[in-house]
Amino acid sequence: MANMQLFTETLKVDLKTGPDIADITSQLFDCVNRSEVVTGMMGALIIGSTGSLTTIEYEPGVVADLKEAINRLAPPDITYAHELAWHDGNGHSHIQAALFGPSLSIPVRKGQLTLGTWQQVVAINHDVKLRCREIEVTIVGV
Amino acid sequence: MANMQLFTETLKVDLKTGPDIADITSQLFDCVNRSEVVTGMMGALIIGSTGSLTTIEYEPGVVADLKEAINRLAPPDITYAHELAWHDGNGHSHIQAALFGPSLSIPVRKGQLTLGTWQQVVAINHDVKLRCREIEVTIVGV
Amino acid sequence: MANMQLFTETLKVDLKTGPDIADITSQLFDCVNRSEVVTGMMGALIIGSTGSLTTIEYEPGVVADLKEAINRLAPPDITYAHELAWHDGNGHSHIQAALFGPSLSIPVRKGQLTLGTWQQVVAINHDVKLRCREIEVTIVGV
Repeated sequence: MANMQLFTETLKVDLKTGPDIADITSQLFDCVNRSEVVTGMMGALIIGSTGSLTTIEYEPGVVADLKEAINRLAPPDITYAHELAWHDGNGHSHIQAALFGPSLSIPVRKGQLTLGTWQQVVAINHDVKLRCREIEVTIVGV
Repeated sequence: MANMQLFTETLKVDLKTGPDIADITSQLFDCVNRSEVVTGMMGALIIGSTGSLTTIEYEPGVVADLKEAINRLAPPDITYAHELAWHDGNGHSHIQAALFGPSLSIPVRKGQLTLGTWQQVVAINHDVKLRCREIEVTIVGV
Repeated sequence: MANMQLFTETLKVDLKTGPDIADITSQLFDCVNRSEVVTGMMGALIIGSTGSLTTIEYEPGVVADLKEAINRLAPPDITYAHELAWHDGNGHSHIQAALFGPSLSIPVRKGQLTLGTWQQVVAINHDVKLRCREIEVTIVGV
């Protein structure tokens, strides 16, 4: 087997007031391209406790539905202990992010990420202000 | 240290109309066995934006409860923008899959996956039709 | 590139009756330190079907809010088929754990985990009794 390679990169993505959802698939594909890894796996983690990563079909309907669902699962308008202590208005953001989770593991095949045709990787900002989010990417493979 | 090895495989699992939940643990154990990796990690991702992976105690009670919970967390009978645009009846499926997430990272020890005795890896179909789901598996280790 | 290294360890964390949430960040940092891996990725999985892993800002407000949200998302006081069959009182625990998920993938940089300043890795016990939870850690890198 060819020697195992390791590639790392920090992506940046600008996100609006949460819930905001950005398609980062092409940025991740570019990472794989730069890594020159043909076969392996990518780990990705969003930095910060009010962001999350998942996959969706990135079309306006699902994006709108997901924003609504996020606020239904952890509503902004109920009482949060975090809010009572810190008054930064983002108690719900923390719960939403913990629920969706910060990390993904994605397969690399033929120098590309293996995803469904209508499956895109998205970064979600749950915070109450716009944020430039960092996503830390690690690729291991040959 | 012995040279790091890399093993990849695409599993297929037939799933009924969602929410349907299949135990894929033994298929994943077979992968580890074929990989000949003794110690390392497995990344697994379900292909498609209406499927998800997680772990449960795979017994009929939990399976029934989880199906109910999935439809409670993102009900099929509310209005979805995806449905208004595409009329494929699976607006809720997309939300459910995004919430549970597409990927897992599972430890490999002594040539086996390390899981609890009553902890099985499951693939979930959230879609409104039966689907043959593909799960892309990557194993790295020695 | 230096030879790829592999490091594994089993962490133990004592957790009270669920939902209980423990900050395991420093234990994970110690793992990275012992591994002597400078750059790479960590996979972590909690053993058992009534535990989960995620990241939060570990401060008393968010911890209290998350406990409440967990019990709102899968309430202890509704009927579960698991309970009707097994009478161990933890039907909701299984659903909560499946929802939050058992595993994370975390980047290793400069011999440390890369996380936000206010982003800690937490282990959650969802079960109705105190549990010593095991978290299986795998680090790959150089």
